[in-house]
Amino acid sequence: MIPTITVFERSPDGGRGLARDTRVRWALEETGQAYAVRCVSFRAMKQPAHLALHPFGQIPTFEEGDLALFESGAIVLHLAHRHPGLLPDDPDARARAIAWMFAALNTVEPPILEREQTPYAVGDRPWCAELLSILDDRVRARLSQLSAHLGRSEWLDGAFSAGDLMMVSVLLRLKSLALLDEFSNLGSYVARGEDRPAYRRAFAAQLLANTQKQPPV
Amino acid sequence: MIPTITVFERSPDGGRGLARDTRVRWALEETGQAYAVRCVSFRAMKQPAHLALHPFGQIPTFEEGDLALFESGAIVLHLAHRHPGLLPDDPDARARAIAWMFAALNTVEPPILEREQTPYAVGDRPWCAELLSILDDRVRARLSQLSAHLGRSEWLDGAFSAGDLMMVSVLLRLKSLALLDEFSNLGSYVARGEDRPAYRRAFAAQLLANTQKQPPV
Repeated sequence: MIPTITVFERSPDGGRGLARDTRVRWALEETGQAYAVRCVSFRAMKQPAHLALHPFGQIPTFEEGDLALFESGAIVLHLAHRHPGLLPDDPDARARAIAWMFAALNTVEPPILEREQTPYAVGDRPWCAELLSILDDRVRARLSQLSAHLGRSEWLDGAFSAGDLMMVSVLLRLKSLALLDEFSNLGSYVARGEDRPAYRRAFAAQLLANTQKQPPV
Repeated sequence: MIPTITVFERSPDGGRGLARDTRVRWALEETGQAYAVRCVSFRAMKQPAHLALHPFGQIPTFEEGDLALFESGAIVLHLAHRHPGLLPDDPDARARAIAWMFAALNTVEPPILEREQTPYAVGDRPWCAELLSILDDRVRARLSQLSAHLGRSEWLDGAFSAGDLMMVSVLLRLKSLALLDEFSNLGSYVARGEDRPAYRRAFAAQLLANTQKQPPV
């Protein structure tokens, strides 16, 4: 039996790959796992059937046999624990790769997401530009630290891992802003992630799903 | 050899237990592990020696033998994987408990932290109150979903787990605001967490460290 993930019936980004199902698709591709997809409309996402799978009414979810999971970080880690390809064998290196997953999700993504959401949330307020400039500086501070750590390395800690998968996914949110251009090694790092065959397959799959679409349920 | 964690030389909250070392102390106490503490000043936190341990210049870090970890989520998960007491034995239940850790850190904490930081970041701007009200509503939306999931259960998914440890820690940030009072089951949930002997020991240890303090290095 292959696992089933849920994805946006129509992603708000129109297929730019920024919805969190892309991270899970990428992990499935890196580990060579086939998967099925179930689309969920914005309306269905807030209904009891989906809330039973995802208490916060979001995507993605992951179902395999009796197991149902939510949170892309948890799903990627679950796949990484069960299939080779996303975590090193050495226990210490494995713990460090997992630390980079948490760093991506709890330290780097929150200021990026806040920056990304703010124009939607308060774009009509006269003070929006002032707030955006403060949030830009906060993102910049994190990117500067990450850039200093990465230096001239290819990946964050040795070979490509679930930590890189998550960090690249988080940084991709900045693609439409100029911020990433200020740190050339981070730009190259993201490009290396996007160049991986598994990422390309994941991206193509979500793009197809978002451009050849069934009508909403 | 016992592990060493780093903590604020002087916590910005003056010992209210909101610094992220409390989460790690709590996990160490739940799993019955002795530990040593090294205090780091704000200045030392941004110096190369500490940045080599924590690329984002924060606390806590965790060192045990050759392993050095950062990110409280990663450290708690590392302890939970290696010692009984924080994760169920059943593989599916274990994956779900880990999902709640990610939910706490990537879905619930970001809007709470944003709400908490905003008065410090833009408290002098005339639009701060307007922004705070928007951020309050965002926190409220998450708490409402979490409250609906928890219902009358004691913990998020069966027995107490690392998922609860992290969720209670995240919700504790709201203690000084009235928001948590709007969801009585969440208030009781947090109180149950605070009542655990392991939490009490962790809280007492950080309080002592923050009130009987060596001078800054």
